[in-house]
Amino acid sequence: MGGDRGPAAIVAGLALSAAETPDAHYILHGNSAELGPMLGREPSLAGRVTLRHADRVVTMHDKPSHVMRHGEGTSMWSCIESVKQGEATVAVSCGNTGALMAVSVIRLRRLPGINRPAIASLWPSRNPVGFNVMLDMGADVKAEADDLLQFAMMGASYARNGLKLTRPRVGLLNVGTEEHKGRAELKEAHDRLARASDTGGYEYVGFVEGSDIPSDRVDVIVTDGFTGNVALKTGEGTAKLISDFLKEEFNATPFSRLAAIFALGTLRRLQKRMDPRRANGGVFLGLNGTVVKSHGSADATGVAAALRLAHQLAAAGFQDRLAARVASAVRAGQDDAASATPSDTGTGGGTTE
Amino acid sequence: MGGDRGPAAIVAGLALSAAETPDAHYILHGNSAELGPMLGREPSLAGRVTLRHADRVVTMHDKPSHVMRHGEGTSMWSCIESVKQGEATVAVSCGNTGALMAVSVIRLRRLPGINRPAIASLWPSRNPVGFNVMLDMGADVKAEADDLLQFAMMGASYARNGLKLTRPRVGLLNVGTEEHKGRAELKEAHDRLARASDTGGYEYVGFVEGSDIPSDRVDVIVTDGFTGNVALKTGEGTAKLISDFLKEEFNATPFSRLAAIFALGTLRRLQKRMDPRRANGGVFLGLNGTVVKSHGSADATGVAAALRLAHQLAAAGFQDRLAARVASAVRAGQDDAASATPSDTGTGGGTTE
Repeated sequence: MGGDRGPAAIVAGLALSAAETPDAHYILHGNSAELGPMLGREPSLAGRVTLRHADRVVTMHDKPSHVMRHGEGTSMWSCIESVKQGEATVAVSCGNTGALMAVSVIRLRRLPGINRPAIASLWPSRNPVGFNVMLDMGADVKAEADDLLQFAMMGASYARNGLKLTRPRVGLLNVGTEEHKGRAELKEAHDRLARASDTGGYEYVGFVEGSDIPSDRVDVIVTDGFTGNVALKTGEGTAKLISDFLKEEFNATPFSRLAAIFALGTLRRLQKRMDPRRANGGVFLGLNGTVVKSHGSADATGVAAALRLAHQLAAAGFQDRLAARVASAVRAGQDDAASATPSDTGTGGGTTE
Repeated sequence: MGGDRGPAAIVAGLALSAAETPDAHYILHGNSAELGPMLGREPSLAGRVTLRHADRVVTMHDKPSHVMRHGEGTSMWSCIESVKQGEATVAVSCGNTGALMAVSVIRLRRLPGINRPAIASLWPSRNPVGFNVMLDMGADVKAEADDLLQFAMMGASYARNGLKLTRPRVGLLNVGTEEHKGRAELKEAHDRLARASDTGGYEYVGFVEGSDIPSDRVDVIVTDGFTGNVALKTGEGTAKLISDFLKEEFNATPFSRLAAIFALGTLRRLQKRMDPRRANGGVFLGLNGTVVKSHGSADATGVAAALRLAHQLAAAGFQDRLAARVASAVRAGQDDAASATPSDTGTGGGTTE
């Protein structure tokens, strides 16, 4: 109910998703007086959607702390509640990110051993699958070495299940690839990520820089939520600037307008390749339940992409695999501390993932 | 001597610069046996360049701390020394950034009241001048509220003298534009930047996000060196990715290759607009002397752009203006502390800038 384009975009996205995933069932939370007629106009959704009425709506301007205390009865709260009660496998929302994270944390609770949950996003890249995973994109404004290690574990698990990569390559974002640069917590995290690569089922490639985020050197980029959020928005802003300049230049002269007609197919392929809607869905990691956060301004295509991701993660049994991986990492950390042998990384054999 | 393309690119850039700025004189530091013959082959440089021999070279792999202790006799050291001795008004180098900052700090010393010097860079933007200023881009990996205030003062001064903006708009980089978000030091800096806008001669626009970096909402973006460096490299990486994808798509089919021929002029104009060589030159701010750091891989065009910036800053009397502005900010800070009236910002009238 609280997305920028209102419930119509959600219902249109549901219709696209229902057509491509015949085995999916949906619980739709919101004002039934508004949603009922919309669903009625989509024959393809008949029998596929359970409508769950909620009186209230979380808006984009509501403060997360306020929603956390007074959010009961909103469609967002109801949506998270359906995951908590085991009715839904994955929650999807286009609403207020901070409020969604706050409600998710308070209702679903953190996985045992997780200090800071994280938001993982996909980033267009030169990798064969076309995307890299980056986290945290803004669940919190800071991260200690412990948190960064957990982000590596969770990000690798997400890359295995969301991008089907057997042994993802994990990198730690820093200002230089030389080991003497960067902040103290990054140096500590660097050593711990290297030691935990067997437990986490990933290959550790060391420090990476901003220019490596879209590269094929790495599959999972680990950073704190402040840096991740700035990087994400800088990347989006740069792409938008280039796209605007390209349009302006193709509109500049009669000849360039003619050239644009010839180049139309090419420019459309480029646009599709960079289309943020294709990778729509930040995933909240580290909770007892999976939540997919769609872009607030997502249209039907974007909503369908978020639902596709949710379906894929549900079908892969992602939540149980992630929980098992985090539990084994917590055990390895305890063993590590107990035996004081930092090189002991051989505890990863018994995981379920 | 230590740039990626060696001294030939420097001499070629000197020749371009000398042609466009007839009143400039150059002191060239490096191996005279190598440089002498190169200069001899450029008749346009006759009588314009003083060659200063230096035996040794700082390489890209040298550690800054090592160069700081043992750098005497290198061309980089000699170059900074010529500013310290008052022979040169501005130093320009394509060498190792960390080493250049280390040598600059130890030889030129910080301006009174400056805790952390900063690197300011230009960023392609929608502003009428085509660029925004951002700092710190990586002189240090962190910044306290005090430092961020100094960055605002220095960045505004640079925008006045480097981009000819009378009253630059300054923004503080954060993860959200709402005031309740972000790190503690940013909230403190937010209040202080707002109070100091008269002393600093800027308009404070508040928090900005990564997506605002290339926008026309703001002229000067203030952040710590870790975040600034990640943002810079993420922006460069994103631009490179789009450029590569564009080339691939125009090469994909015979028809698209034909379309590329028609679109060539348009694509060249776009390339020129985004060309990082046009904005080549990070400026070190906060020292007793101005240092321009060119990109390590700069070619003749890039070197000439860095020299153009150096010439413009020298002609504007930038170093004295910056020093006066910093001094007035330090005085205002002391008055502020002494009188304990945080709203007193009326001390900016007596500055020279």
